[in-house]
Amino acid sequence: MRIQKGITRTQGIPDLSFGEIRARVEGFYARHMQLLDSGNVEEWVAQFTEDTVFDVPTLPKPVQGREDLLASVREGRGKLAESGQRHRHWQGVIDIRSQDDGTLWIRAYTQVLASTVGEAPEGGKSWLHRVCVCEDVLVVEGETFLVRSRKVTRDDLA
Amino acid sequence: MRIQKGITRTQGIPDLSFGEIRARVEGFYARHMQLLDSGNVEEWVAQFTEDTVFDVPTLPKPVQGREDLLASVREGRGKLAESGQRHRHWQGVIDIRSQDDGTLWIRAYTQVLASTVGEAPEGGKSWLHRVCVCEDVLVVEGETFLVRSRKVTRDDLA
Amino acid sequence: MRIQKGITRTQGIPDLSFGEIRARVEGFYARHMQLLDSGNVEEWVAQFTEDTVFDVPTLPKPVQGREDLLASVREGRGKLAESGQRHRHWQGVIDIRSQDDGTLWIRAYTQVLASTVGEAPEGGKSWLHRVCVCEDVLVVEGETFLVRSRKVTRDDLA
Repeated sequence: MRIQKGITRTQGIPDLSFGEIRARVEGFYARHMQLLDSGNVEEWVAQFTEDTVFDVPTLPKPVQGREDLLASVREGRGKLAESGQRHRHWQGVIDIRSQDDGTLWIRAYTQVLASTVGEAPEGGKSWLHRVCVCEDVLVVEGETFLVRSRKVTRDDLA
Repeated sequence: MRIQKGITRTQGIPDLSFGEIRARVEGFYARHMQLLDSGNVEEWVAQFTEDTVFDVPTLPKPVQGREDLLASVREGRGKLAESGQRHRHWQGVIDIRSQDDGTLWIRAYTQVLASTVGEAPEGGKSWLHRVCVCEDVLVVEGETFLVRSRKVTRDDLA
Repeated sequence: MRIQKGITRTQGIPDLSFGEIRARVEGFYARHMQLLDSGNVEEWVAQFTEDTVFDVPTLPKPVQGREDLLASVREGRGKLAESGQRHRHWQGVIDIRSQDDGTLWIRAYTQVLASTVGEAPEGGKSWLHRVCVCEDVLVVEGETFLVRSRKVTRDDLA
């Protein structure tokens, strides 16, 4: 049982074992989703490449580039604030494949969890809002990654 | 803080650190669940040993062997298609123990997430369908694993 | 792409790569949550330091020390048993940062999943009960960790 073939031969990830790569990918997504959910949108957008392509079903067409992505996520956060809901993006079931060009191809599931706020101790409500599939291409950036492209699909849409 | 005792002494997993083993187990389940949910049932069944024992509460008795497992999962997928629902199997909270015979004993939680399809932009509904505990025995197969046995219990059954 | 800076320089975790640390943290939480949900409260409490501080919104004030924590969790388990519900604590989206004093600072999301029991084959119901953020300080204890402090917030409370 040796290191997964292909992983160590990519240009972008020269000397890392599968365990190190997986740990960094998991760590990347944990911070990535927490930045979004905390409203740190500039830091979140900085985790995409300058020429990123961001394709999600809640937008009429794919967003291209960090500038437009920042405007788009700000608009989305504004609508969320108006709705009175809190959202958490939960990435899991992360399948990682290395590609010949040194990038990683990721296919993961994303739960969007929603809550409304109420008085203690009962509090408000929480529920599973969306189930999505998230396909990313990640490029290596130092000890972490940048998202070159993201395609999200929703299980509740045809 | 050294490598976990026992892990490196098993026959099946001779020279791997705990980090490498965990990464491979997580990667195994990610692909395993995605194969099932995508309907790639032959590939999914190929992740079990020939003589696997598969014990889940939705079946009247445990299924034995790949052939019967394939028939069983095809029947299940057919019923799911008729229901109009989409299901995602989300493995997490994965506890891994190495055993003296070189196998891994896994105890994990599984969420089954269900969705119905509706028109954009509202879409259909998504909800938490089941909460299960999944106990697997994994045997090493090259750089990945095969499921020798699986026992699933549902939190909503006595 | 080398090992993350800082991680290997901490006192508590002298020679471990980021992959090894992440695997141990993930493994720690998996067993930790399973111990709680299985009612093994003594073993669960033993995963905290003697002088731990445990701050969760369901308690009127923070609990200090293992003895009080054990009493508190026993009371909570008793109430849960009376309610007829089963709960699962699902830790995920785990962000890990090493600190100068050799501890790890963790910020993770926690889903609390609830089920009621019903007759087979329909069974009872399962639902997403709570969405929480869990901030822990972990100290290294041999090959595993102890929780020095825990602060939990609920998305459904102001």
